[in-house]
Amino acid sequence: MKGHLVDLSRLVEKEIQQYTFPQKPTNLYDPLRYIMTLGGKRIRPVLTLLGAELFSTPANDAMHAAISVELFHNFTLIHDDIMDEAPLRRGMETVHTKWDQNIAILSGDVLMIKAIQELAKQKPEHVLELLNLFNRTAAEVCDGQQMDMDFEKREDVSIPEYIEMIRLKTSVLLGCALEMGAIIGNASEQDRKLMYQFGQQIGLAFQIKDDILDLYGDPEKFGKQIGGDVISNKKTLLYLTALKDANEAQKIEFLGLEKESNLDKKVDGVKTLFNTLNIREKVSIIMEIHRKYAMEALAAISIEESQKENLRALATYLMEREN
Amino acid sequence: MKGHLVDLSRLVEKEIQQYTFPQKPTNLYDPLRYIMTLGGKRIRPVLTLLGAELFSTPANDAMHAAISVELFHNFTLIHDDIMDEAPLRRGMETVHTKWDQNIAILSGDVLMIKAIQELAKQKPEHVLELLNLFNRTAAEVCDGQQMDMDFEKREDVSIPEYIEMIRLKTSVLLGCALEMGAIIGNASEQDRKLMYQFGQQIGLAFQIKDDILDLYGDPEKFGKQIGGDVISNKKTLLYLTALKDANEAQKIEFLGLEKESNLDKKVDGVKTLFNTLNIREKVSIIMEIHRKYAMEALAAISIEESQKENLRALATYLMEREN
Repeated sequence: MKGHLVDLSRLVEKEIQQYTFPQKPTNLYDPLRYIMTLGGKRIRPVLTLLGAELFSTPANDAMHAAISVELFHNFTLIHDDIMDEAPLRRGMETVHTKWDQNIAILSGDVLMIKAIQELAKQKPEHVLELLNLFNRTAAEVCDGQQMDMDFEKREDVSIPEYIEMIRLKTSVLLGCALEMGAIIGNASEQDRKLMYQFGQQIGLAFQIKDDILDLYGDPEKFGKQIGGDVISNKKTLLYLTALKDANEAQKIEFLGLEKESNLDKKVDGVKTLFNTLNIREKVSIIMEIHRKYAMEALAAISIEESQKENLRALATYLMEREN
Repeated sequence: MKGHLVDLSRLVEKEIQQYTFPQKPTNLYDPLRYIMTLGGKRIRPVLTLLGAELFSTPANDAMHAAISVELFHNFTLIHDDIMDEAPLRRGMETVHTKWDQNIAILSGDVLMIKAIQELAKQKPEHVLELLNLFNRTAAEVCDGQQMDMDFEKREDVSIPEYIEMIRLKTSVLLGCALEMGAIIGNASEQDRKLMYQFGQQIGLAFQIKDDILDLYGDPEKFGKQIGGDVISNKKTLLYLTALKDANEAQKIEFLGLEKESNLDKKVDGVKTLFNTLNIREKVSIIMEIHRKYAMEALAAISIEESQKENLRALATYLMEREN
């Protein structure tokens, strides 16, 4: 991130440092102190602050909503990590690994409640609209997570289904974060919807970028193991596109590689096959389509073009990031 | 339950039958359709409706809040059953047994969101107050559940600590349910607090009654295995009182019975020891104290005495029930 985005990100970070959970029961709140200081890009709260600023409202006026979105996001991380049996998050132990599963379930639950509690601190005239948006979005995020789990057991997932899954699991929360800022900035109904659209489309592109980085990221900059999704046979957009475009021989080779126990050989084999099928380019085109949709929504928002620069910069950062 | 309480309970039941969850993803919402129709006494939503009626407001005006409380209560049941590894709930398979643990975590999560969504459907002028009460209570319920789990690993739990745990885990939600009704009935701040107090104290007595019924219930009416808490060495109020009052020899006998593998012998042995120590009477006295506090709060509420009959009847039902 650059310029003003860095300022906002620092503002969020400072606020999170100052946010206090109750002291007791320690087994319930220590995990929350832990996960909230594990870092991360803080993209969602920055979006909320940017959303308010776009409609001439100081970033600080949207801070409770911004923190609420980040608390909710971290709640989803704690519970998703249990469901995925993930040992690590941002290079550190996950909550259910460091404590135990029951503590992870319950501290996740209370974190979601804390998120709503924080949201309710916004100006009373905005709370109901914010809450309705939050609730709808939170339920959709759960729907998306369930679809993701269901996909693991299915062999016939289509690309539109996959896009719908990541829209629910990831993108709607980015749309929600931005629209919350717009609500606090008293934007028109039309502009609020466009902000949501921008966030949602950028969210889709962001998640597709994630899929690409997993295999094509620079090992020195990526920070995680290259090919993690390939190793766990995750049905990413790369995987689904390859399966759709492969001929019979390639399909057999591809499905054979799923069972390969030499992991270097597995990742190299899949990458070679993907290269033959131009998968990176094909998936990048889908990413660009969603970026374009995002830019169209942004263009239609009824504010001065010059004020849109920060959102454009954030979109560029999210598409061109290397980790 | 009798008279008007039965009418309200049927009204709640009908409303729950008509409440619809989304069709898809089926793995997320089928468990919720399942648990919400498993039955139960529906005490909490009845309290909310009674609370509104007490302040001359039709029960139906408080229906969204009532359903919200019942949805939240069922969310806690789904997650608690995972944590307790409980195979059965009301004689039927628990969600994590019938489906799986991940589905139980996620469907619980979305049920909590649905609870808040339902609450937000009350008249806008009440939503913020209702929400703040709900959030505070929901966090306390989590605190109580964590204390309960922490107690399993401790040998030095005091009676006041135990009372505080059940206050948080069980009683505050009954207080909240009643106060919500009072908020919707536009009761004064003072009356709202008294309603909460009544609910909380009745909740404590209710939970202590639960502890007593576990060992002293009529096997034909109780519906569950008599002595379940004894078998699982649960630190109930009976257990803690016995441990406090036992002499050295009795303490050794009691702790020896914890390891007894013949379950009939274990339950009989513990019951004999409890009888020697007058545990049932001692615990009943504590229950009566909380019932008395509840009645004092009720007496102080500034409405006509005749209108308080339904709440008195509910308190009597909760104290004298046999299951």
